[in-house]
Amino acid sequence: MSVITDTVRNGVDTERMFATLDLIKAQPELAKFQFRATNRWLGGAHNRSTIKEFYAAGGEDTSRIQAFQIDAGEPAILLGTDTGANPAEYLLHALAACLTTSIVYVAAARKVELTSVESTLTGEMDVRGALGVDPEPRNGFERISVSFRVTGNAPEEKLREVVERARKRSAVYDMVTNGVPVALDVATD
Amino acid sequence: MSVITDTVRNGVDTERMFATLDLIKAQPELAKFQFRATNRWLGGAHNRSTIKEFYAAGGEDTSRIQAFQIDAGEPAILLGTDTGANPAEYLLHALAACLTTSIVYVAAARKVELTSVESTLTGEMDVRGALGVDPEPRNGFERISVSFRVTGNAPEEKLREVVERARKRSAVYDMVTNGVPVALDVATD
Repeated sequence: MSVITDTVRNGVDTERMFATLDLIKAQPELAKFQFRATNRWLGGAHNRSTIKEFYAAGGEDTSRIQAFQIDAGEPAILLGTDTGANPAEYLLHALAACLTTSIVYVAAARKVELTSVESTLTGEMDVRGALGVDPEPRNGFERISVSFRVTGNAPEEKLREVVERARKRSAVYDMVTNGVPVALDVATD
Repeated sequence: MSVITDTVRNGVDTERMFATLDLIKAQPELAKFQFRATNRWLGGAHNRSTIKEFYAAGGEDTSRIQAFQIDAGEPAILLGTDTGANPAEYLLHALAACLTTSIVYVAAARKVELTSVESTLTGEMDVRGALGVDPEPRNGFERISVSFRVTGNAPEEKLREVVERARKRSAVYDMVTNGVPVALDVATD
């Protein structure tokens, strides 16, 4: 086996991972990232985000060749035509994806080879809040439940430690559980 | 013009909208919704959510014909191969989509015909947090900026009121700014 093969675990190049961590430790200013999305309304509950550019490690990214186009919608009962998952469902996807990638990266760093990572997420919502029918229920999910099933070449205790460390480091888990300040401005011409 | 045409504004059937609101006022138990996502790891930073079933208005939805498959990834600098937008970018998309749909629905209810709704979102992140390099920066975005441009057949003041009401009712804006309790459980077999 070549050295290169040995450094890849769970599809993550751990040599590059540790080199990145060392670089950011040495030059903390490289840790400033900015992610972006632009969105455009297409009619009714249909809108589309375009995601491509971001700022990372001291400059604008040039590695992404193509923009991602992501459509949102609502099901019929929420007055849409299912042009895409709805915004609250995308929030569940963001949370699932971030926790999963965190688990995979932490496992790679800790020499755990994973065989599967699956999750099911549910969010409970009383839509009277978002529909403005009743001021009492909040607009968003009252709670979110996440069930992971993680398998790999490590004892149960170690796999649980990996998940716990991933939870502690996940960007979206932090945002969804703790909230983020949002500034909103509007132009009308 | 037929009556049916008159009830559709901004692509939203306002007659159905007001009927839905009346029904939920009369039977608040119909307001209990549950949205779901399942996610599966596909290697490295690549994972995919499947979104289809949800519970709404007293029963399991049967209207959605197809599942949505949504791929996540990371760019090269975050050790991925751009198999999709990254989780934090999906959170920006969820926020943009929810605010946009809220603006469109509020405008429809208030007899404002919109001609365009566009937004740009940025999130600032110090990745030392999520990478576990430094305990000080938080994992997620320190702040999110949302810039809307909204045009339609109403004076500026009315358009601004529509955006402000939408912000107050948006499910994802509520979740992102205020946070949501998340319960996480893990199985390892």
